[in-house]
Amino acid sequence: MVGSVGNGCSVVLEEKRAELLPEELDHHQHEGVANGKLVANGVTNGGKKMVLGRNMHTMCFAVKEPESDDEFTGEREAFMASVLAKYRKTLVERTNHHLGYPYNMDFDYEALSQLQYFCINNLGDPFIESNYGVHSRQFEVGVLDWFARLWELEKHEYWGYITNCGTEGNLHGILVGRETFPEGILYASTESHYSVFKAARMYRMQCVKVDTLISGEIDCRDFQAKLLQNKDKPAILNVNIGTTVKGAVDDLDLLIQILEESGFKDRFYIHCDGALFGLMMPFVKRAPKVTFKKPIGSVSVSGHKFVGCPMPCGVQITRLSHINAFSSNVEYLASRDATIMGSRNGHAPLFLWYTLNTKGYRGFQKQVQKCLRNAHYLKDRLIAAGISAMLNQLSSTVVFERPKDDEFVRRWQLACEGNIAHVVVMPSVSIEKLDEFVDELVEKRSNWYHELMNPSPCIAADIGQDKCLCALHMK
Amino acid sequence: MVGSVGNGCSVVLEEKRAELLPEELDHHQHEGVANGKLVANGVTNGGKKMVLGRNMHTMCFAVKEPESDDEFTGEREAFMASVLAKYRKTLVERTNHHLGYPYNMDFDYEALSQLQYFCINNLGDPFIESNYGVHSRQFEVGVLDWFARLWELEKHEYWGYITNCGTEGNLHGILVGRETFPEGILYASTESHYSVFKAARMYRMQCVKVDTLISGEIDCRDFQAKLLQNKDKPAILNVNIGTTVKGAVDDLDLLIQILEESGFKDRFYIHCDGALFGLMMPFVKRAPKVTFKKPIGSVSVSGHKFVGCPMPCGVQITRLSHINAFSSNVEYLASRDATIMGSRNGHAPLFLWYTLNTKGYRGFQKQVQKCLRNAHYLKDRLIAAGISAMLNQLSSTVVFERPKDDEFVRRWQLACEGNIAHVVVMPSVSIEKLDEFVDELVEKRSNWYHELMNPSPCIAADIGQDKCLCALHMK
Repeated sequence: MVGSVGNGCSVVLEEKRAELLPEELDHHQHEGVANGKLVANGVTNGGKKMVLGRNMHTMCFAVKEPESDDEFTGEREAFMASVLAKYRKTLVERTNHHLGYPYNMDFDYEALSQLQYFCINNLGDPFIESNYGVHSRQFEVGVLDWFARLWELEKHEYWGYITNCGTEGNLHGILVGRETFPEGILYASTESHYSVFKAARMYRMQCVKVDTLISGEIDCRDFQAKLLQNKDKPAILNVNIGTTVKGAVDDLDLLIQILEESGFKDRFYIHCDGALFGLMMPFVKRAPKVTFKKPIGSVSVSGHKFVGCPMPCGVQITRLSHINAFSSNVEYLASRDATIMGSRNGHAPLFLWYTLNTKGYRGFQKQVQKCLRNAHYLKDRLIAAGISAMLNQLSSTVVFERPKDDEFVRRWQLACEGNIAHVVVMPSVSIEKLDEFVDELVEKRSNWYHELMNPSPCIAADIGQDKCLCALHMK
Repeated sequence: MVGSVGNGCSVVLEEKRAELLPEELDHHQHEGVANGKLVANGVTNGGKKMVLGRNMHTMCFAVKEPESDDEFTGEREAFMASVLAKYRKTLVERTNHHLGYPYNMDFDYEALSQLQYFCINNLGDPFIESNYGVHSRQFEVGVLDWFARLWELEKHEYWGYITNCGTEGNLHGILVGRETFPEGILYASTESHYSVFKAARMYRMQCVKVDTLISGEIDCRDFQAKLLQNKDKPAILNVNIGTTVKGAVDDLDLLIQILEESGFKDRFYIHCDGALFGLMMPFVKRAPKVTFKKPIGSVSVSGHKFVGCPMPCGVQITRLSHINAFSSNVEYLASRDATIMGSRNGHAPLFLWYTLNTKGYRGFQKQVQKCLRNAHYLKDRLIAAGISAMLNQLSSTVVFERPKDDEFVRRWQLACEGNIAHVVVMPSVSIEKLDEFVDELVEKRSNWYHELMNPSPCIAADIGQDKCLCALHMK
């Protein structure tokens, strides 16, 4: 198995990596030491040995004790500079051939490089000043205000913070839900991000998985049926504003209606996982609105996705009333800290602040429109080439048949699940890059399937019969 | 209340901030909007209004929508550059006057600035390669190997990852403990970091708080007594390798002996919270050893503390056997991801790798010795000036009477708890800085207490009668 969209686990093609980071570098390539039950069998590919599954120390730059004369000879410094220069080259190449993950690689934070010399830490709550002076709360709060305005929650009514990633947002939102309804059952569609189920396990919550439609959206009928089986317990619902694999948006309005009609009025908490689309949806015409004017409890979005950031980060916004209730349990918080992490990266708010100020709502709107246009372009080109593909409304995630060659998948860093792969069209993905990708896919594909008349594998179970271009469904 | 060591919550002296970030900047100073039960009363200080406790929007750089002609006029860019330049000035000043938090501010990562242009994300498990190519796993694994060697666990026997901070390490270690012993009771001394109690609440674990000695160490007698009250359930124990406030080190060997003698053999899990001292202890002569040759389950240490790093990070090392058992629950992990966060900062491993390679074991040893020497120097100078002070063996955290003036506390960014404050002597703290601090403290103090013969407040309850220099205990 090459990978899953969830965390992108994959095989390691050792020879390939060696090519990118030449042997003369002092990197240590250990033979993969397989462990755990997930280890798969070794496979040969063109004479090169591949080790599938879980590998220990497949590749690593060992830390070596400096020689006592290193300072004098300068050899250590030269060695490290050469490792870093070559690593940088790899990063350039890998960044240029990237299509599968929803990260906007197109950013320029040169203006902020002067701040890399400081240990910036926004300890604890953004709204409680700390004695630690080297922080960036004043920028963090500016960013939070911007997002609260986007999702229509007044300054005095919201609480939030800048997280380390989308997972932290989900962990926080679901925890606030559980603290609001300690006996509540967590409902989430099977296509929710894996961190939602991780949270259920961590928090020892009863969790009910809800089916999805072929689009990846939650199946509202199944949700209602499962709700009615558990009428005695409050509901905590994870709503996907863009699923990880298919970019499907759950029907928030219908879900709220079902909850209210099923006798859950004032007995439910909704967390919206808007990792990617949380920031795109507001700029899509005719898209249903994610807003705190509806009875939702929290929204999380990633900062390194649509905005673009050198490291993962995210924004979490919830209602202040929830946090006040949450914080009243002093023993829990011990130090009035309602975040999941105590120490927090103070550089992330600066990156976000810089981009929001530069682009503004108008800038994001333009970029969202461009991404949606380019995603349609990609889908159309794939279909024209006879490759089954799907693109949800409101989404820039193009789902298509999984390329047969793992080497191709790795080259373009595609995220795969079962029989499908996807490309997430981000602002850093141009028409030219998409053309290069499709041209290469079409060319390679003719080799993979050269003996077949209609080479398309059936992926009707993943994208629906109407969109599947396999021999059976083309009839 | 000025602050607690836990997360350093504090009052906001609005006028002071205005001084550091001049009014002509377009920062928005809102009147503190108090909320929640922790809000304290307003206090006047030299005619300036201070708002204590929890404040909303005390100070923030609002994000403003760009004007349509901004690109043409360049005004937006100029405005942002001026905000950042002034912010940088504040950071320089705040970094220079910093003593209270255990962060090594002395680092130079200029060589790594070329990597700031990349979105580096070590998705999921460090030992499972991802299709996402822009990662730094090869550096991360090198760093992990170094720490595993430090704590004496073989390459094929450990698992670990680079976390976002010490809190994530504690959350992970305690979760591994709970998964190993689902019915286990969590034991932690009252002076443990607040994230330990946060974990207990998050994970719905029964938690027993154990008393401490005056030094801050766990009271082993009380631990044994509480253990014996719960003989039917396994024990999960948090051991502090340096408490947050007093830098006290729990007696690992004695704790293990108590567990084994009390009938808990093979029914306990020990997590060592080594946020700061985890990296100092190995270099302190005659210090008891933290090592996986003893029956411990996990160790965590912060990366931004003794090592020094622009943003918070940490290292988590545990036994591979625990993670294999942990990972066998596929539903939980969904994607073979045994980390707490899914997306992970790929820059942090580069910072750590760079410093470890530059300094090596020898370099750390030198720095640790210097810190301990300087800490003794500070303690001696305080006592010579008649100020009650305490310094635990093995520690560079000097505890002393809380300065009476909050302004002074903020100026030096001291972390305070109750009647005591502390200075953590890090590699970036020189003798000259300590002299400047003590001289200023002695001078100010003579104003605070000018009417008294012996001005020392009694802090015997915090540091012991033998170390208290108040009028009563000096007799």
